Amino acid sequence: MSPTVGILGAGQLARMLALAAHELGIKTLCYDNHDASSAAAVTQTVRGSFEDRATLLAWAKQCDVITYETENIDLVATDILASQGIEVFPSRRALAMMQNRILEKTFCQQLGLQTAPFAVVKNEAELHEALASISYPCVLKTATQGYDGKGQHKLNQESDASTIKLSGDNTYVLEKWVEHEGECSLLSVRAQDGEILHYPLTYNRHQHGMLVTSKAPYENPLLQQKANRIAERILQHFDYVGVLTIEFFMMEDELLINEMAPRVHNSFHWTIEGARTSQFANHLRALLRLPLGDSQAIAPSYLYNCIGQLPAPERILAYANAYYHDYGKTARPGRKLGHITWCDFDNEGQQAIDAMLRSEINNIYE
Amino acid sequence: MSPTVGILGAGQLARMLALAAHELGIKTLCYDNHDASSAAAVTQTVRGSFEDRATLLAWAKQCDVITYETENIDLVATDILASQGIEVFPSRRALAMMQNRILEKTFCQQLGLQTAPFAVVKNEAELHEALASISYPCVLKTATQGYDGKGQHKLNQESDASTIKLSGDNTYVLEKWVEHEGECSLLSVRAQDGEILHYPLTYNRHQHGMLVTSKAPYENPLLQQKANRIAERILQHFDYVGVLTIEFFMMEDELLINEMAPRVHNSFHWTIEGARTSQFANHLRALLRLPLGDSQAIAPSYLYNCIGQLPAPERILAYANAYYHDYGKTARPGRKLGHITWCDFDNEGQQAIDAMLRSEINNIYE
Repeated sequence: MSPTVGILGAGQLARMLALAAHELGIKTLCYDNHDASSAAAVTQTVRGSFEDRATLLAWAKQCDVITYETENIDLVATDILASQGIEVFPSRRALAMMQNRILEKTFCQQLGLQTAPFAVVKNEAELHEALASISYPCVLKTATQGYDGKGQHKLNQESDASTIKLSGDNTYVLEKWVEHEGECSLLSVRAQDGEILHYPLTYNRHQHGMLVTSKAPYENPLLQQKANRIAERILQHFDYVGVLTIEFFMMEDELLINEMAPRVHNSFHWTIEGARTSQFANHLRALLRLPLGDSQAIAPSYLYNCIGQLPAPERILAYANAYYHDYGKTARPGRKLGHITWCDFDNEGQQAIDAMLRSEINNIYE
Repeated sequence: MSPTVGILGAGQLARMLALAAHELGIKTLCYDNHDASSAAAVTQTVRGSFEDRATLLAWAKQCDVITYETENIDLVATDILASQGIEVFPSRRALAMMQNRILEKTFCQQLGLQTAPFAVVKNEAELHEALASISYPCVLKTATQGYDGKGQHKLNQESDASTIKLSGDNTYVLEKWVEHEGECSLLSVRAQDGEILHYPLTYNRHQHGMLVTSKAPYENPLLQQKANRIAERILQHFDYVGVLTIEFFMMEDELLINEMAPRVHNSFHWTIEGARTSQFANHLRALLRLPLGDSQAIAPSYLYNCIGQLPAPERILAYANAYYHDYGKTARPGRKLGHITWCDFDNEGQQAIDAMLRSEINNIYE
């Protein structure tokens, strides 16, 4: 009997996990609190709220192992599952830390891992106090529920800060804006027996807080080694199972941790075609006690997100080395609808590829 | 709106077509006359008989384009669809020919394409008459419904022929057993605008009439060129849309057509990981008027069928270059349950790979 993997959430990450599972004969069953989901076209989905104990437990009983596609899962859900002895991977402890910027940065401090200077801020008085030590430019971020740049405000000068209204329901992190040379991310996977594999570093470009393109491998042996060591410390600390993504700011030969995600990550979608084993397959292998797969790149790979609108597939697929992914979502401005991976088998180079795709995708950086 | 591809049949070929479709955001809807199907775990399936006009047409109305996963589709179904102006790809004309060995071989004769000598046989008297011209050894095959060696009898001597009982319901082909140096297959794809792409030739080994292993690319420029020319003549003859597989006997520098299949084919499952574009993706692209994808191999690739029983996934996935596919079917002797593709990124060579997998798979040739 093939196992069933339960996935909390049913967006595009769950969809791509399900597709990787199906190749291996593994069933998937998603759980989400709304209907029109990206994953529903490719796998069965149960609808229920994350606080609905009965529905959640009935769903969990059909699953052999449970994971999630987003760190913005209400911990109520994992608590309900834990109350019945049902484990979730990566662990609740890692999830709780990574879904809250304050816990995340405090954790990094405790482990001696570098982040940008920051202060916790609950109201406007605390904001102005914090601004005295953390000078402009800086960024105010909600402690929880942020993704794709949502809940973030850059503060360049006092006039930006004076107009800010803080909601009493939220806690915030005021973070020094670090002048960095670029951003990169590392995806690592840890198996239940403790084996760890790292993917090549990926170089990322963001626009309006959203990832627009990634390039992999980002060849920098020194930074790769530093990133691997950081990931290993975190993975071992949590006795972690599954994939972990760490986003870094690059400053000369140093890495500052920007944020972490206890899940498959947009910046590693290129691994579907561009690596010997995809991030999705390796996450599943870790959950199911299967041997991890080789994380080497097959070719230099470029990822382009399709945000707000999808290019016509016939235009993209006319390029021999382009792979087109449509998540089956309804188009909305600012929504990730699909992505293109370009495996550079023919050494065309990033400039040429960017130039070809710039007329097809509206969000390639200028 | 993403299109929906209707697939007649819901076995593992439909399953793999559905998975390739989902990457592109394309929906699939299978139609089959039994319930427990391999594809049902990954795509919606309508159950109905192939003669059930109402159910079939209700299904077809939900599809933008229709194809099939087996040539053993009752032509009644395509006739019902044609009566409403609904087209099926590849065309009914190609399907009708390739599902009947007599029509297939006669077609080859008409086009001047080489096959083994054969005779049509309806009863025992005709069998003995045919044996006079087609000497031993030879093979008696049912004209229709044969696959994986089913419906075939090898006749080595008169005593084999004298015990044969021919069913009055069937027509047969008596075929000369050709002493060949091996078998290979070609998969080609033709787009709606007439563009044709060929995959590299694949070298196949059978046991008890079933494919057990394939190796690709089979590097033989002369035979590749001959095979390509044969495929082009057939594709152009039918104004064909989709993939076509031709199985050949190799005799020195000559190719004899063994049989054809108007569909994706077991011997090209290695293209999922081993080629730049899989056979499944290219079939869908042809149906949907999308540009065809590059058919080059990424690495030498070896396919191993798992017949009757599946090896434990943890044993196969322990090999870094092995990809494991489980079709989600119930195990039965002689049933294709999954396959393994080994992409030889590290130049281990076939002998070494065979040796590693021989202890895992019970049907590797001795």
